[in-house]
Amino acid sequence: MSLARARVLGRPALAVSRARCFATSSVRASAGPFYAGEPSGPQVKTTIPGPKSQKLLQELDTVFDTRSLNMICDFTKSHGNYLSDPDGNVLLDVFAQIASIPLGYNNPELLKIASSPEMASGIVNRPALGSFPSHDWADLLKTGLLRAAPKGLDQVFTAMAGSDANETAFKAAFMYRRQVERGGPEVDFTAEELASVMDNKAPGAAQLSILSFKTGFHGRLLGSLSTTRSKAIHKVDIPAFDWPQATFPQLKYPLEENVAENARIEQASLDEVEHLITSWHLPPAAVVVEPIQSEGGDNHASPEFFQKLRALTKKHNVLLIVDEVQTGVGATGKFWAHDHWNLQDPPDLVTFSKKAQAAGFYFGNPGLRPNKPYRQFNTWMGDPVRALLFRGIINEIEKHDLVNHTAKVGNYLFESLEGLARKYPEHFQNLRGKDRGTFIAFDSPKRDEILKKAKEFGVNMGGSGANAVRLRPMLVFQKHHADILLETLEKVVKSI
Amino acid sequence: MSLARARVLGRPALAVSRARCFATSSVRASAGPFYAGEPSGPQVKTTIPGPKSQKLLQELDTVFDTRSLNMICDFTKSHGNYLSDPDGNVLLDVFAQIASIPLGYNNPELLKIASSPEMASGIVNRPALGSFPSHDWADLLKTGLLRAAPKGLDQVFTAMAGSDANETAFKAAFMYRRQVERGGPEVDFTAEELASVMDNKAPGAAQLSILSFKTGFHGRLLGSLSTTRSKAIHKVDIPAFDWPQATFPQLKYPLEENVAENARIEQASLDEVEHLITSWHLPPAAVVVEPIQSEGGDNHASPEFFQKLRALTKKHNVLLIVDEVQTGVGATGKFWAHDHWNLQDPPDLVTFSKKAQAAGFYFGNPGLRPNKPYRQFNTWMGDPVRALLFRGIINEIEKHDLVNHTAKVGNYLFESLEGLARKYPEHFQNLRGKDRGTFIAFDSPKRDEILKKAKEFGVNMGGSGANAVRLRPMLVFQKHHADILLETLEKVVKSI
Repeated sequence: MSLARARVLGRPALAVSRARCFATSSVRASAGPFYAGEPSGPQVKTTIPGPKSQKLLQELDTVFDTRSLNMICDFTKSHGNYLSDPDGNVLLDVFAQIASIPLGYNNPELLKIASSPEMASGIVNRPALGSFPSHDWADLLKTGLLRAAPKGLDQVFTAMAGSDANETAFKAAFMYRRQVERGGPEVDFTAEELASVMDNKAPGAAQLSILSFKTGFHGRLLGSLSTTRSKAIHKVDIPAFDWPQATFPQLKYPLEENVAENARIEQASLDEVEHLITSWHLPPAAVVVEPIQSEGGDNHASPEFFQKLRALTKKHNVLLIVDEVQTGVGATGKFWAHDHWNLQDPPDLVTFSKKAQAAGFYFGNPGLRPNKPYRQFNTWMGDPVRALLFRGIINEIEKHDLVNHTAKVGNYLFESLEGLARKYPEHFQNLRGKDRGTFIAFDSPKRDEILKKAKEFGVNMGGSGANAVRLRPMLVFQKHHADILLETLEKVVKSI
Repeated sequence: MSLARARVLGRPALAVSRARCFATSSVRASAGPFYAGEPSGPQVKTTIPGPKSQKLLQELDTVFDTRSLNMICDFTKSHGNYLSDPDGNVLLDVFAQIASIPLGYNNPELLKIASSPEMASGIVNRPALGSFPSHDWADLLKTGLLRAAPKGLDQVFTAMAGSDANETAFKAAFMYRRQVERGGPEVDFTAEELASVMDNKAPGAAQLSILSFKTGFHGRLLGSLSTTRSKAIHKVDIPAFDWPQATFPQLKYPLEENVAENARIEQASLDEVEHLITSWHLPPAAVVVEPIQSEGGDNHASPEFFQKLRALTKKHNVLLIVDEVQTGVGATGKFWAHDHWNLQDPPDLVTFSKKAQAAGFYFGNPGLRPNKPYRQFNTWMGDPVRALLFRGIINEIEKHDLVNHTAKVGNYLFESLEGLARKYPEHFQNLRGKDRGTFIAFDSPKRDEILKKAKEFGVNMGGSGANAVRLRPMLVFQKHHADILLETLEKVVKSI
């Protein structure tokens, strides 16, 4: 599709340039770093936390809950893939602020943007975007967020973080569903609806639900938490909506040896989805799903599963919300993880945050704009500061072809991990993420010990689910970083 | 209380300096501007939106819902109290991005902070604050957010905006309530709780509620929206929790002439609160209340009402959450609006956002830290960028004594509006906000026309509730700005 043709179709013209630029090949997998100034390797000088970190931790704890603290960081001394702490320790970071740093610490190009007058204005003159947008907001959206828009989606609603990105997407789905049930956008609310909703009652408060999957994670605010099914500790004591959950396929590994069994598992999940859609006492307005369940333990399903899920939701007029908060922006070797599915019909809504640094949801169907103003609204509705940064991130991803780069480094890393899994099968179980860039995980009965030891050997890694190690390097993670990671993993498992 | 004594008590030492600095008097009400470079008055060159704005609006509408758009802004040309648009119009802004700009557009001191290396690092190296805070996070909290902490509260949980500030406060209240019911933080969850909550069912999903007030506004995510009772259009079609609402006192004006009646109205509201606390099928873990219901139409209640509400919630072991998202940070002539109440026992939780530019909730009771890590958690948990900015805002507020300044300018503005109300009683009804700084409102049957006309005469004003004009100037609003506002209001009402 040419740029001119894209303009005629009303899509942001630059959207196509992404696809084109991202398709060129890269030879940087084994070359020097993308940005100068990165350390040549980890340096561990003290236990972690070291004495300085322990003092700072005690100080912080007087005013701020520190029990989920992993380590105190010194970002001023961190560079690229390397995270430093106040004790002078320098770790190769493959957790990246819970999968949310896209291009390395103190990325020089992003620092330029962060130091620009445009950015300073965005910080100081924060607009109420829904009512008082800046003259350049349309341009910033079109040259930024919307250039990265998933195929088939050309509208955006901006939010603050993953949780409210998902909840505002849920709201869009509820309003759309009720609009369809009413007979269209021009049909007004009844007096009874308007009165009852003020009392949180039907018919004004919709008797609808969002269907999510077991072991899925979609955030921790009260609506998103009702769809989150990762761990009880995330949910206990918090009121929840009586919404349905289907079983997410629990595939057997290696995939090649379990083809028939996995197909059966996926079909059973789809059957359960269909049953819930047609029978749940609060009908689902949407199904929300992660392309790879991340917090829940890196659970994968096949493209065929998602194609059938799309068909199933279409068949029953239920919207499909793809939660790309953790999977989006390149780490799976495609810009969006759902690009791997080759869908005929795109998802109805795609939510994003984390590595985008900005957050919100994309959509295409104009019917997903509510029929009246102020229905989907809040004071800030996002942050131009983060929209400016995402534009810079997209530019750098294009310039260095980082999505294809990540696909290649990911393949190298995955193959090498297969080697380690053959050598140490007890520590590298259910290796997954083949052809999914660096979005790789494995299970280990000694997971917590592995994470702790890895830090002692100079690598910061994260866990997920019950016993998974999830690798979440940045998009500037290269072959030489992969080699350090692999050597460290071998040292770790040998030592325990 | 001396600094040394404050340290002994474990409160951030600088917290006391706020009280001290804010107590000095100001003579700037009638002097020159706080910061140089502000226009001398409004300039209206075209209709608003003018031709350039209309073109930009059309462009924006292709990708972003613009139906709640008020005007397109050119922030690069805006200064202090004056907001510019792309057509060269310059308006005196007493709406201030829905009450969220504290110190004027392009404030030079805040621009310095926004251009600092510290800020650039905060933008580019955004941490997952709960797990990987920066070495200077404790210092930033103590020299920033916590210096502004309400009396009696010395802990903070940081969030993104008002909605999630409130929802995380609700979560803290639910977890605390269940902890008390269980018998303390050391009593573990039952297996049944941990299993049932994954299915969103009791006993794991707490059968509790948050009690809010009719015409109150606390945000638009699914939990906060269940406590929001401002307008049906905010709520219709969105599922809601079956939580209780009490009537907020609807005081009669002028207050001096309705003392007995208003006391009766307030007592009836308190009786309703007590009845709901003791009878609602989902017991309230907390009552959430705005010091002045803002979005709902600037509804006030007396300090006595809030003192009794505090006593009532204490009596029934229900937490009191004071939502200072719109009222906080100086505009009422105290740093926090609830400072006007002279409470013996502080609120349990105080939420903030908007003019703080950062968001979150303060608390004092250590029991409000959940008993285990990761219960109150998300990836970003706030934004150091906004914490840095809030520190700068606090510094400037202190330096220019802007809270006392606002109290004085507010008194001048209120008295002058009383004069206009005597002259044009049909247009200035129920004038309210006496002794509440510039946080002033009045009702008018022609409210929408007044807002529209005001823009033509060079003033940007906002509405709230059914027919209120709410004035929300910045803290750098001075007597000469008040005079322009008053002259414009008179011109407006004369012209309609």
